[in-house]
Amino acid sequence: MVIDTQNERPKHRIQLSKVGVKNLKTFMITERSGVRHHILPKVDITIDLPAEQKGVHMSRLVESMTEELSDQFRVHSSIEHIQMRILEGLSKKHSFKRGEVKFEFEFGYESHTPVSGKRTWEVCDVTASTTMEEGKPFMHDVEVKVIGNTVCPHCMANNAGLTHIQRAFGKLRVVGEIDAIPTYGTMIDIIEQSFSSKTYSLLKLEDEVHVTKEMHDNPLLVEDVCRNILQHAKDKYSDRDLEMFAEARSLESIHKHDVIAQGRVLSNGDE
Amino acid sequence: MVIDTQNERPKHRIQLSKVGVKNLKTFMITERSGVRHHILPKVDITIDLPAEQKGVHMSRLVESMTEELSDQFRVHSSIEHIQMRILEGLSKKHSFKRGEVKFEFEFGYESHTPVSGKRTWEVCDVTASTTMEEGKPFMHDVEVKVIGNTVCPHCMANNAGLTHIQRAFGKLRVVGEIDAIPTYGTMIDIIEQSFSSKTYSLLKLEDEVHVTKEMHDNPLLVEDVCRNILQHAKDKYSDRDLEMFAEARSLESIHKHDVIAQGRVLSNGDE
Amino acid sequence: MVIDTQNERPKHRIQLSKVGVKNLKTFMITERSGVRHHILPKVDITIDLPAEQKGVHMSRLVESMTEELSDQFRVHSSIEHIQMRILEGLSKKHSFKRGEVKFEFEFGYESHTPVSGKRTWEVCDVTASTTMEEGKPFMHDVEVKVIGNTVCPHCMANNAGLTHIQRAFGKLRVVGEIDAIPTYGTMIDIIEQSFSSKTYSLLKLEDEVHVTKEMHDNPLLVEDVCRNILQHAKDKYSDRDLEMFAEARSLESIHKHDVIAQGRVLSNGDE
Amino acid sequence: MVIDTQNERPKHRIQLSKVGVKNLKTFMITERSGVRHHILPKVDITIDLPAEQKGVHMSRLVESMTEELSDQFRVHSSIEHIQMRILEGLSKKHSFKRGEVKFEFEFGYESHTPVSGKRTWEVCDVTASTTMEEGKPFMHDVEVKVIGNTVCPHCMANNAGLTHIQRAFGKLRVVGEIDAIPTYGTMIDIIEQSFSSKTYSLLKLEDEVHVTKEMHDNPLLVEDVCRNILQHAKDKYSDRDLEMFAEARSLESIHKHDVIAQGRVLSNGDE
Repeated sequence: MVIDTQNERPKHRIQLSKVGVKNLKTFMITERSGVRHHILPKVDITIDLPAEQKGVHMSRLVESMTEELSDQFRVHSSIEHIQMRILEGLSKKHSFKRGEVKFEFEFGYESHTPVSGKRTWEVCDVTASTTMEEGKPFMHDVEVKVIGNTVCPHCMANNAGLTHIQRAFGKLRVVGEIDAIPTYGTMIDIIEQSFSSKTYSLLKLEDEVHVTKEMHDNPLLVEDVCRNILQHAKDKYSDRDLEMFAEARSLESIHKHDVIAQGRVLSNGDE
Repeated sequence: MVIDTQNERPKHRIQLSKVGVKNLKTFMITERSGVRHHILPKVDITIDLPAEQKGVHMSRLVESMTEELSDQFRVHSSIEHIQMRILEGLSKKHSFKRGEVKFEFEFGYESHTPVSGKRTWEVCDVTASTTMEEGKPFMHDVEVKVIGNTVCPHCMANNAGLTHIQRAFGKLRVVGEIDAIPTYGTMIDIIEQSFSSKTYSLLKLEDEVHVTKEMHDNPLLVEDVCRNILQHAKDKYSDRDLEMFAEARSLESIHKHDVIAQGRVLSNGDE
Repeated sequence: MVIDTQNERPKHRIQLSKVGVKNLKTFMITERSGVRHHILPKVDITIDLPAEQKGVHMSRLVESMTEELSDQFRVHSSIEHIQMRILEGLSKKHSFKRGEVKFEFEFGYESHTPVSGKRTWEVCDVTASTTMEEGKPFMHDVEVKVIGNTVCPHCMANNAGLTHIQRAFGKLRVVGEIDAIPTYGTMIDIIEQSFSSKTYSLLKLEDEVHVTKEMHDNPLLVEDVCRNILQHAKDKYSDRDLEMFAEARSLESIHKHDVIAQGRVLSNGDE
Repeated sequence: MVIDTQNERPKHRIQLSKVGVKNLKTFMITERSGVRHHILPKVDITIDLPAEQKGVHMSRLVESMTEELSDQFRVHSSIEHIQMRILEGLSKKHSFKRGEVKFEFEFGYESHTPVSGKRTWEVCDVTASTTMEEGKPFMHDVEVKVIGNTVCPHCMANNAGLTHIQRAFGKLRVVGEIDAIPTYGTMIDIIEQSFSSKTYSLLKLEDEVHVTKEMHDNPLLVEDVCRNILQHAKDKYSDRDLEMFAEARSLESIHKHDVIAQGRVLSNGDE
């Protein structure tokens, strides 16, 4: 006979907003527009817990995922659809008012060197979560983080064209319903076009010369990169209903610290 | 003649919520109730940027800190007071509507082994930030993270007393005005008393036996640890005006993943 | 006309042991005994540099990899074979006496819960490198790191059976020629059987009870786990020519720090 | 009556090279040439374990440190002296053939902006360990890691002076007896002078212009930075008996990956 500790009354009757599993690792395949993506995410699955209940049945949270991914090599249509199905499966195993599934993973994509035209493979970071809440549609929250660079226009203007350059990170995060969520590919494009230049895993000398010229023709502060991401996203996603956040961070080459800029816009207005 | 790029009009007129420096490292000494603390924080200093202005004068943000800490070995009364003075200094150098100074650092404190009574030195993680906003009082946000443990009561109840035990993290975060902010020491006490047992850098055999018995007498889920932190904080700080958040995370010994619980209460009510 | 800076004389004529690219990310598929593995490694490719030469042609190092992986979705026979072909390709593009290719990646594998027999997916960390050196056979160096647990026998013996338990990491590293290198699967088995118990991403209550009993029947220090790994590897690989290293680390549940044990054996002798 | 599990015979009679505690945190003060340093290290203390003995008495390893640092605010002459005294204390509590104490910490130092002459506080990373072995003198191993930058001379030569610039890390590691070990300050100077330019936590516009010019006048590959560190160290420490290692790593601004160079020299010869 099982003693169901989780269903006991807790010592302190306080409602908890999120209880669940964190850093669970798994594997899945998605295919979109004929391109396969092999995803090895870290997974968090959490639900709320009422004040009168001692605990969550943790193994059911894990099972909601393992049952959806019972065939690890099956091809799925998107991360967002997997997350919705995990939450639907969970809602049949465990009661909750608000449930959330979050994946953090690396996302690879094909690119080409700008002059020599060689094929390269680039990798960025994605955090994607889906929330299921009583009486509301599923909400999705996707953040893409891509590596680029900045060239300081302030130094350039005061130093006869000489300036400092550095690796930078750009992030675009979108929040909305399933029909509004863009492909990761368009989000990556928006971020890459917002830097002084894109970066590449391979550059032959002719490519390196091209990229370096492009960078110097396009000097940008992190403030500029952040606003570029926001404006490009507004332009690209103007027909969708999205809340959008951007961040630019540059690993300053003349300092030991970084500089950052953060902002937020709505796709259909400017707040 | 200096070209002031930062004061130019930006290409895209979008307001930014936070612009500034990140991961700046420094050193400072505080003394409270006769105990010295030597703090090596990572510092973020950020301000908002209006839509019509291209950039922030980053070096003024750094100077607001270096001027306050011009003598690195001077003894200060508290982290919160240093942060307020940095923001006051910054407000004379740079216009902003909302400015924030955040420190992340390790905080050491003396403890004693439970039976043998030997002195030990324990270290926890603190994140502390102060915000200055037009027409509002300074707001402080302090999070303390301490290492403890959990002993699973569900397994114990179903397994004739045998159970699994693991390292766990407890966090307490408080948000309020300066008079409401507690000492880090009382926050550490609250968290340590919320685990199955405290942890120690040194334990002789008699201490280890004592701690292990105590753990088995006090089996707790992460949900219990999180609620303990919240309830203990409500009890301790009932005469203060604070918004309080807690998180418990355990590094499960029978799984490769972690389990977590998060909640929130107000010091003077239960929301 | 290209100025070949790399072929100039350096200011200081000092030989360098390793020069190359680090943290390059890519993707590849391997298949062994009918099981596919999808690998997203971080890649380091380095070569030595003679005292008289200023620099390495970095893009050739990247190309040695991108050419071998020109079809990202092609199925390869093993990580070690990919690494040998990258080095063979590199040796046609760039002179070196000693070249090394190193991959760090997560490796997933199927497992089953011990009582309920449910299928689970487990993930461990692998670091694999191959070295090509003038006049020597390729040498391979593979380290597998798996999560398990320890149950303290010293506390148990002095505390009427009560003890502390914690998450632990076990590592097995093997160094040898291609024919001696074992599958990652057998290395994972060796490590898992060396802990107080294996860990699982999913455990139903009957599994949790079983695992917890097993842990208490098998109390082990990190010293024991480390020696178990070394002895099991000697037994399993006695017919191969391998240098083998092991490490056990436990995230003590009664302390804030960890404890570790490290050792080394040869597969065909004992030192 | 205590059961001394550690002194039992192990199941597998294999000697272990290192057993002990890891990531123990503490605090200490040193003073050298009138300058105080406040050190918050992560500490590893390990000893070897003979094949016939089951385990190490871990609490004695911790006590060897807590007894040496019984007054946390006492001023010590150097990290190396503290480490020798910990090992001497440990040798009276526990038998071993080889014992090692390792500290990892951040080390702060005063600097000045190059033109405006303002005082700044810079921080670098240090790893310092001391080994005590039967019949041998204490051996010390100190690695200092400092942030600087590189400016690509190959791109500059092929691109009419335009090039890419990036944050870089330089490391210098020295191994020798106590009289040969240099101050951390001279090691920092050597590394800083080996980059295209030093970096600063604060730069006013006149400083930024100066630094940027200096960088362009001094374009360096990571290979150059690594050889500079090695040559400067040989020149500076020619009268000492040291084995010396260097590494340069640059966070390429045109790539998502890094490039590295590693080398080794002896202070009194060139191997």
